[in-house]
Amino acid sequence: MRFFHIQGERFIELAQLPADLPAAGFLWASYERGEFDQHYGEFQQHLQRWDCGQLVDLHTADLLNKQLPSNFDYTSWYDLLIFTRLAALPGLEERPADDEAGRLAAAQAAFAAIETSPLGFAVFDHVLLTVHPEGCPVREFFAGKLGQLTEGRDLRGSARLPTSPAELMLRMVNHLVDSYLELRRLLTRHLGTLQRALMEGNSHFDNWPLLLTARDTLHRLEEISEDQRSAVQEWIDALDEWPVSIDPAVQRDRELLRVRSRDVLEHIERVLTHVRRLESSSEAAVQMHFSALGHRTNAIMRTLTVLTAIFLPLNLITGIFGMNFDGLPLIHKAAGFWIAFGLMLTLGLGLGLYFWRKRYLGTRH
Amino acid sequence: MRFFHIQGERFIELAQLPADLPAAGFLWASYERGEFDQHYGEFQQHLQRWDCGQLVDLHTADLLNKQLPSNFDYTSWYDLLIFTRLAALPGLEERPADDEAGRLAAAQAAFAAIETSPLGFAVFDHVLLTVHPEGCPVREFFAGKLGQLTEGRDLRGSARLPTSPAELMLRMVNHLVDSYLELRRLLTRHLGTLQRALMEGNSHFDNWPLLLTARDTLHRLEEISEDQRSAVQEWIDALDEWPVSIDPAVQRDRELLRVRSRDVLEHIERVLTHVRRLESSSEAAVQMHFSALGHRTNAIMRTLTVLTAIFLPLNLITGIFGMNFDGLPLIHKAAGFWIAFGLMLTLGLGLGLYFWRKRYLGTRH
Amino acid sequence: MRFFHIQGERFIELAQLPADLPAAGFLWASYERGEFDQHYGEFQQHLQRWDCGQLVDLHTADLLNKQLPSNFDYTSWYDLLIFTRLAALPGLEERPADDEAGRLAAAQAAFAAIETSPLGFAVFDHVLLTVHPEGCPVREFFAGKLGQLTEGRDLRGSARLPTSPAELMLRMVNHLVDSYLELRRLLTRHLGTLQRALMEGNSHFDNWPLLLTARDTLHRLEEISEDQRSAVQEWIDALDEWPVSIDPAVQRDRELLRVRSRDVLEHIERVLTHVRRLESSSEAAVQMHFSALGHRTNAIMRTLTVLTAIFLPLNLITGIFGMNFDGLPLIHKAAGFWIAFGLMLTLGLGLGLYFWRKRYLGTRH
Amino acid sequence: MRFFHIQGERFIELAQLPADLPAAGFLWASYERGEFDQHYGEFQQHLQRWDCGQLVDLHTADLLNKQLPSNFDYTSWYDLLIFTRLAALPGLEERPADDEAGRLAAAQAAFAAIETSPLGFAVFDHVLLTVHPEGCPVREFFAGKLGQLTEGRDLRGSARLPTSPAELMLRMVNHLVDSYLELRRLLTRHLGTLQRALMEGNSHFDNWPLLLTARDTLHRLEEISEDQRSAVQEWIDALDEWPVSIDPAVQRDRELLRVRSRDVLEHIERVLTHVRRLESSSEAAVQMHFSALGHRTNAIMRTLTVLTAIFLPLNLITGIFGMNFDGLPLIHKAAGFWIAFGLMLTLGLGLGLYFWRKRYLGTRH
Amino acid sequence: MRFFHIQGERFIELAQLPADLPAAGFLWASYERGEFDQHYGEFQQHLQRWDCGQLVDLHTADLLNKQLPSNFDYTSWYDLLIFTRLAALPGLEERPADDEAGRLAAAQAAFAAIETSPLGFAVFDHVLLTVHPEGCPVREFFAGKLGQLTEGRDLRGSARLPTSPAELMLRMVNHLVDSYLELRRLLTRHLGTLQRALMEGNSHFDNWPLLLTARDTLHRLEEISEDQRSAVQEWIDALDEWPVSIDPAVQRDRELLRVRSRDVLEHIERVLTHVRRLESSSEAAVQMHFSALGHRTNAIMRTLTVLTAIFLPLNLITGIFGMNFDGLPLIHKAAGFWIAFGLMLTLGLGLGLYFWRKRYLGTRH
Ligand SMILES: [Mg+2]
Ligand SMILES: [Mg+2]
Ligand SMILES: [Mg+2]
Ligand SMILES: [Mg+2]
Ligand SMILES: [Mg+2]
Ligand SMILES: [Mg+2]
Ligand SMILES: [Mg+2]
Ligand SMILES: [Mg+2]
Ligand SMILES: [Mg+2]
Ligand SMILES: [Mg+2]
Ligand SMILES: [Mg+2]
Ligand SMILES: [Mg+2]
Ligand SMILES: [Mg+2]
Ligand SMILES: [Mg+2]
Ligand SMILES: [Mg+2]
Ligand SMILES: [Mg+2]
Ligand SMILES: [Mg+2]
Ligand SMILES: [Mg+2]
Ligand SMILES: [Mg+2]
Ligand SMILES: [Mg+2]
Ligand SMILES: [Mg+2]
Ligand SMILES: [Mg+2]
Ligand SMILES: [Mg+2]
Ligand SMILES: [Mg+2]
Ligand SMILES: [Mg+2]
Ligand SMILES: [Mg+2]
Ligand SMILES: [Mg+2]
Ligand SMILES: [Mg+2]
Ligand SMILES: [Mg+2]
Ligand SMILES: [Mg+2]
Ligand SMILES: [Mg+2]
Repeated sequence: MRFFHIQGERFIELAQLPADLPAAGFLWASYERGEFDQHYGEFQQHLQRWDCGQLVDLHTADLLNKQLPSNFDYTSWYDLLIFTRLAALPGLEERPADDEAGRLAAAQAAFAAIETSPLGFAVFDHVLLTVHPEGCPVREFFAGKLGQLTEGRDLRGSARLPTSPAELMLRMVNHLVDSYLELRRLLTRHLGTLQRALMEGNSHFDNWPLLLTARDTLHRLEEISEDQRSAVQEWIDALDEWPVSIDPAVQRDRELLRVRSRDVLEHIERVLTHVRRLESSSEAAVQMHFSALGHRTNAIMRTLTVLTAIFLPLNLITGIFGMNFDGLPLIHKAAGFWIAFGLMLTLGLGLGLYFWRKRYLGTRH
Repeated sequence: MRFFHIQGERFIELAQLPADLPAAGFLWASYERGEFDQHYGEFQQHLQRWDCGQLVDLHTADLLNKQLPSNFDYTSWYDLLIFTRLAALPGLEERPADDEAGRLAAAQAAFAAIETSPLGFAVFDHVLLTVHPEGCPVREFFAGKLGQLTEGRDLRGSARLPTSPAELMLRMVNHLVDSYLELRRLLTRHLGTLQRALMEGNSHFDNWPLLLTARDTLHRLEEISEDQRSAVQEWIDALDEWPVSIDPAVQRDRELLRVRSRDVLEHIERVLTHVRRLESSSEAAVQMHFSALGHRTNAIMRTLTVLTAIFLPLNLITGIFGMNFDGLPLIHKAAGFWIAFGLMLTLGLGLGLYFWRKRYLGTRH
Repeated sequence: MRFFHIQGERFIELAQLPADLPAAGFLWASYERGEFDQHYGEFQQHLQRWDCGQLVDLHTADLLNKQLPSNFDYTSWYDLLIFTRLAALPGLEERPADDEAGRLAAAQAAFAAIETSPLGFAVFDHVLLTVHPEGCPVREFFAGKLGQLTEGRDLRGSARLPTSPAELMLRMVNHLVDSYLELRRLLTRHLGTLQRALMEGNSHFDNWPLLLTARDTLHRLEEISEDQRSAVQEWIDALDEWPVSIDPAVQRDRELLRVRSRDVLEHIERVLTHVRRLESSSEAAVQMHFSALGHRTNAIMRTLTVLTAIFLPLNLITGIFGMNFDGLPLIHKAAGFWIAFGLMLTLGLGLGLYFWRKRYLGTRH
Repeated sequence: MRFFHIQGERFIELAQLPADLPAAGFLWASYERGEFDQHYGEFQQHLQRWDCGQLVDLHTADLLNKQLPSNFDYTSWYDLLIFTRLAALPGLEERPADDEAGRLAAAQAAFAAIETSPLGFAVFDHVLLTVHPEGCPVREFFAGKLGQLTEGRDLRGSARLPTSPAELMLRMVNHLVDSYLELRRLLTRHLGTLQRALMEGNSHFDNWPLLLTARDTLHRLEEISEDQRSAVQEWIDALDEWPVSIDPAVQRDRELLRVRSRDVLEHIERVLTHVRRLESSSEAAVQMHFSALGHRTNAIMRTLTVLTAIFLPLNLITGIFGMNFDGLPLIHKAAGFWIAFGLMLTLGLGLGLYFWRKRYLGTRH
Repeated sequence: MRFFHIQGERFIELAQLPADLPAAGFLWASYERGEFDQHYGEFQQHLQRWDCGQLVDLHTADLLNKQLPSNFDYTSWYDLLIFTRLAALPGLEERPADDEAGRLAAAQAAFAAIETSPLGFAVFDHVLLTVHPEGCPVREFFAGKLGQLTEGRDLRGSARLPTSPAELMLRMVNHLVDSYLELRRLLTRHLGTLQRALMEGNSHFDNWPLLLTARDTLHRLEEISEDQRSAVQEWIDALDEWPVSIDPAVQRDRELLRVRSRDVLEHIERVLTHVRRLESSSEAAVQMHFSALGHRTNAIMRTLTVLTAIFLPLNLITGIFGMNFDGLPLIHKAAGFWIAFGLMLTLGLGLGLYFWRKRYLGTRH
């Protein structure tokens, strides 16, 4: 657990929770989930001492839950946001396989192993509580970046310190959403592999479990994005109900907070659009695969029919001249065989030509 | 029927309905459906004596109905919630079958036998009336637990007594929702059995009635969850219309009630998401099954075509040399047969090689 | 046409429309559609004399329309509800057929002959006008029941007389909705017949017109229920806009009216859910039918392929030994035939075993 | 272009636009689209002189557009309604074809040639401007009917003159909606032809372009009806925002206008329901067609398999006795042939019986 | 970057941003994206000097983003609209291919290369900022047209200068929407090519990647249009919240702005309807293609079955008379062969006739 005091241009790490709230700026208290499980009683006592109200027990339970979908709730003391992080597990990217089997196995592994653990935020007026999964890179990123402020021009605003717990929360949420970008590259690559396997070697595809995993994964991602969107949408709705201030500086801050919230929402919607496009494109590829399969079956049937149509009459002729009748015509003539053979040749070629003309035998099967 | 008086830290079972409402705390009157059918007249009289208004006749009929879907209604005197319990019937879990046929039969039994009986709640200001199915374990659970309060830390709040009829109702509803967890294990296991039957022994699956039952069951569960969600959503909407109090303690209680209600709603939505995921995943498995079947038909067609294509020409050759022409070439030469046989061997192997190259004969069928 | 005066505990049939409105209670004027077509002018004059306003011409036209879907409209003088009755035509139930063809014909007849004629209600403050199809059993039922009031306990409220035109209208609408129950038994039975025909004798089903009729019927029932729901929902919305009274008795009546209206709405929603479940279940049965058909085609293909694969090589052997080469091996040896026959037997059995092992020949086709 | 002055019971055609607005009643100015293109400047000048405001340029452009979908817009001076007329082109009905090919060609022509040109209405307080397609029968119908008023009883209200521009507009829109009735007969007949072609001669249907045209046509009709519904819905919403009057006569007129508007909306919804039913029924017929085709393919496969299964063993026997082995059994016995022939007959009939029993050979193909 | 001052009838290009805002009229500052990236600091300083507030950093980032979907946002100082331009890339139209392969390749190229870059608008009270993609023809078009005003009658209003930044923005957006018209011609042509390829040469279509591209393209166009619609809808909603003015001229301008905004919205909805119609029509064509394919497979199966059914019995006869029995009947008679041959001929023709009668052999395959 790490504690910070942020005020104007200063960003100071504290060794422990202060006995009193600082007169200006705000506190950021960040815990890993395990740490919060042990210390939430202590945190509650500090909240009470700071006159910030109390975390409701149900919310504490939500913050400790490792599986909760994205969610927003509120009380008169604070707003609570649970936000699922969508990220590629480290190590998934390392070895690009050489052969198709390897690539499909890698895709299977990737679809099955997307990290989706929730971060919890409780936004008080002057305190931000964040609860992270174990080893969460997001906390370290922000603890580091906010301390430095060394970047040059950054239009998305991280070049200056956040002025309120809500702004810090929104920046962290935006960072979580942008982490989808990495995942996006990964998903696009593995779905491309799958699509190629479906379209190219089309008649031998049989990796149904992979296809099932891919569909379930995309459907789950869509659900997660939809939950993220609802949660942020509810945050925006709650923001509009915050008590109005007549101080122009507060009004300005509030307006910027709203702009930033809508920006986060728009980022989530772009992720959602992208996931839906992947879903729709995968479904189309599966459809095309089976369409091609139908064409192929049709071509095979045509071949079978043509073979049957050519050889059955020829076999009939040989059968006729193979009968044991004494009076079988032609058989005792010298040219008899060649006449029959010529007849068979003509018939075979004629039938072949006929079917080729009727396009039963295409060049493409 | 059992009656309780709950006040602050005390939880007392009463022998019968008291003549007057206690000055503080609230009453909980619980009936089984059959008991309520016999005693609702008496309960109405007590309500009138306590100055709590009257149960509307239509609502009494709803409380006695064994098949009503989840539903919320209200009058100025009380709120009425009918809430369907989703639970695995006892005994369904006992013997895990050894062979696949047994497992499929167990799945069939499980899908057909999910218990979905409704509990009824009438929430007055100081009285909670609950009407249970016969032998309902929920009443005994709460009668027992509330009497003991012996558990340690419990963040979901059951370590302290409820402070109002509404809170007790919400805790019972939450308990009902969580009972889906057991069912979830059961459903997941049996759908897994079905999925394996569809994917593995793919060409011999013919248990269509089981598939139909599974689909109907999941669709019914989705409907039930949607009705649960609407009912609780309407309860939350009604809660917002309750008259405002200026007493801060009442305001605080009301706020906690709202948090708890939204928590129940979120639990129901998680059940709904899970049911929909099962539905979508089952439909995908069925699709994959038929896709695999299509591939298999295609492979069989290819085999048939190749067999025909190889043997018909060979048969033609034997037919030719089986004709009774006097002048048939080769037949009187010593090596004649071996020449013909060599020709046939070459032709057979050549055609086989050709089709193997064109991947008509894959290693996987 | 029949006219009634209802006041408190009294229910009196009048010979004709009274010249003046009774001082207390309300009037119920009921017409068959044909009667109303002849007498609406007269009814309008009475309305004017009673100072109840006028029926708008467009509404009179709606009341006379035999095909109108369920609908709600209002003016400042009255509310108008058109409500479609869903009922099984009498006589459809009589002879349960003995054989399947008879049962399918009965199903066809039943699907094509569901009665869906509309009843019209105009609800004034102290007058209820109802317009019925010819020979409508609903009017006789209510005229009879309200006159007797002899039943014992009846929680749905028909044991006491309605206190307002609106309540009487709601009771009649509820009666109409409950008449779906009969139809429900009929539909369930005939759809069961159809489902069994699809699943059991699966490869010979060809009664497509019946299937088309069943689907169209269910779709039409869904539409009708949706229209019923919209109409009652709009009635409930209009009810909330009625002018507020400060008389507690009026407030109480109004509240009970709202409870009753929501109860009717809930009944309609249950019908709608049931119809949708039938629809979804029928579609699933059709899908399963074609799935089973696909399996069967696959099994037939496998049989054909195995037959071809076993007999073509055997035929080739007979062909070879049927050729007329002088130097054909084995043919002049005594055991020659038996060697060839043994070879053919071995090959045939070996191929049979091979395909049996590869599960080309299952026990189930 | 024709101009009328309507006041109370009088309906007078004017030679030209009057210099001043009449003191009572209202004006109806009707143009064909080409006429309005030439004279809209002049009409604008009259509007200004009458102090009725100005048509916004964008609206003038909409009124001149021949392809605009149904649409509603408003300004503080007037309301603008564009409403698409759905009608059968004259001449489509004339010759009912004798043979199926002729009927299908007639259907193709009918689907491709439904007239859907827009009428424009601008509703001022005392002026109605209508812009019609060339040769529009609607204007002539109303100019004629309103002048006569000779019909007897007409509940839909056309037996008396409209009292405001809005009422006249609504009557004309209602007339446009009812013109769907004719089209409905036509569509139902041609879709019936198509359905019969799909179901009866089921294995030879190949008129895909007609099917495509029918589907596109129905989809387009659905869109048009949805646009009509939105436009009238928006008109109704706008009506509720009209300034309130305290004059009871004005209030009464306004109420009747609302009743009439909702009536038009209900008519449109009935058209929409009908179009959707046609759509859904067509899709079902197409599905059934392919289902029947699948059954037929299955039956053909069964026939092929049975033929193969019967003749291949018989051919094998002839092959065996056709081999040239010296020691072939039976061949030198007198009854040898008849023994073999009996064996073949028995085998053939036995196999035939076996397959007939297993229902491979049904009576229905 | 180009700057303009628009006031009443005057349209003047400025060399640089003026130090002070002009007393009347408004400024239009237009940048290409690259230019704005370099000069946005300077523009911010001018905004501050003119007392117009500040562009929020997040919005500046949006204006610089090359990939943002259509979007609307607002602050108390300005409204921000990002609007995606849908246009055919220049050069796509040039060479209409002669053969089908060339046309399909052109379609592939066209679907893959639709330009969809966003334009950004920031609408201040007296300043319009527009940010264009590099080489955007829209800016040059407006800079040119507004300077000339030489056209004659133009009902859509571009014959007079815009009176506010919002009106200029709406005119530019409308111009962007209308640029879909060109694209529409292109799309319709290429989809027609694809449709013909699917329907005509139906059994050989295998250009699945093109089909996939076409579907993805149409789906993407639908998304883009939906985003455009949402953005303009939000603009219209924001317009309704603008502070009310009591100046009639301002009110009139505001009303015209709303009319124009709704007109733009209606244009976008027409594009959306058109895109959806193309989508639905493409899906129908694909379905028809596979339906036709199924018919063809069925016809081929019929042919195969008839061939087998005719030749197998004939072959059996030849086999019988080819057996080596001494007592084979007929073979030693003079007419023996001709009797057998006649039998075979009769049987073959009889079977052919039988199948022709049962319509197994249609004229259409
Ligand atoms: Mg989904
Ligand atoms: Mg979803
Ligand atoms: Mg969800
Ligand atoms: Mg999308
Ligand atoms: Mg979709
Ligand atoms: Mg559903
Ligand atoms: Mg549902
Ligand atoms: Mg439901
Ligand atoms: Mg979901
Ligand atoms: Mg879902
Ligand atoms: Mg669905
Ligand atoms: Mg539906
Ligand atoms: Mg519907
Ligand atoms: Mg409907
Ligand atoms: Mg449902
Ligand atoms: Mg449903
Ligand atoms: Mg569904
Ligand atoms: Mg559906
Ligand atoms: Mg639709
Ligand atoms: Mg639609
Ligand atoms: Mg549509
Ligand atoms: Mg539409
Ligand atoms: Mg409908
Ligand atoms: Mg429908
Ligand atoms: Mg539909
Ligand atoms: Mg879509
Ligand atoms: Mg979409
Ligand atoms: Mg989409
Ligand atoms: Mg989208
Ligand atoms: Mg549309
Ligand atoms: Mg559509």
